[in-house]
Amino acid sequence: MPHIKVDPALPGIIGLFDYRPETAKPLSELAEVLLRGPSSLTPGERELIAAAVSRGNECNFCASAHEAFAAAQLDGGMALVELATGDYTSAPISDKLKALLKIALLVREDGRKVDDASVDAAKALGASEVEIHDTVLIAAAFCMFNRYVDGLATRLPDSPEVYQERARQIVKSGYLRVVE
Amino acid sequence: MPHIKVDPALPGIIGLFDYRPETAKPLSELAEVLLRGPSSLTPGERELIAAAVSRGNECNFCASAHEAFAAAQLDGGMALVELATGDYTSAPISDKLKALLKIALLVREDGRKVDDASVDAAKALGASEVEIHDTVLIAAAFCMFNRYVDGLATRLPDSPEVYQERARQIVKSGYLRVVE
Repeated sequence: MPHIKVDPALPGIIGLFDYRPETAKPLSELAEVLLRGPSSLTPGERELIAAAVSRGNECNFCASAHEAFAAAQLDGGMALVELATGDYTSAPISDKLKALLKIALLVREDGRKVDDASVDAAKALGASEVEIHDTVLIAAAFCMFNRYVDGLATRLPDSPEVYQERARQIVKSGYLRVVE
Repeated sequence: MPHIKVDPALPGIIGLFDYRPETAKPLSELAEVLLRGPSSLTPGERELIAAAVSRGNECNFCASAHEAFAAAQLDGGMALVELATGDYTSAPISDKLKALLKIALLVREDGRKVDDASVDAAKALGASEVEIHDTVLIAAAFCMFNRYVDGLATRLPDSPEVYQERARQIVKSGYLRVVE
């Protein structure tokens, strides 16, 4: 049961956004610019980074949600996403994306673990400095979202169809719609 | 040396906000609403939660900055802040604030560690559900800010006077000024 009285019809972060619109606004804007704003990384690639970090943090709501959002925007669909959030090193994704996922998973543990070698490897594989910046911030942001969702003991949706429906909404209208 | 080319004159998150104004905007708005927006917790109390989490994550830039911001807004000044970020259980702060700091430090480790007993204890000491919500989100947000600052290996300021100067700016004008 959640630690605070959120609308029982609204699982995960959806209930928290409804509970506190003042904080929902900048949080949604952050998700929108990081995951859907102008970038040389595709929305699918960025959602995959979010999903891998959330899976690493064992946040079931965020991991299932962003796996669905990634699957909806990557050619390989959920089969590819599950390979990449399981063991990205053997997944059929680009070497550049593997190098960025490595950095993201180091950030998940502790920002200080991101070493020059991991950053240099990503740059050698074609990652730009903005891509490295955004990868670090996406990973850091999901360390926040995961703790927010689990720290208040929010509930999971009754059906996994909720993740698919939200994936359709987000691909169509983006993250800002949830706070309108 | 930072992992990306930020302005060498701008330490910590200041350089990152300058580097990527698109993400600086929602991040600053989040800090403003969480740490300075309408709340039954004082700005000093909220900065103390931010400082304790940042000290726990050993993020020197964020910890030193938010300790200075807390000290500027709490009657006990830096002496009180150092006691509270060292061992809050023996610091001369209210029992309610101690219960909220306990929750914040559990969130720092892992959101799933926030147990009913800790939440019930805070409520019994007078904490409202909104205060519990905001405490969890402040702690979660600083798990993001700390990883952002350290994951990109930003540098510390040359002089600790930088923290005092920013404390004066933030008390006077808030967090949004940095992105104007």
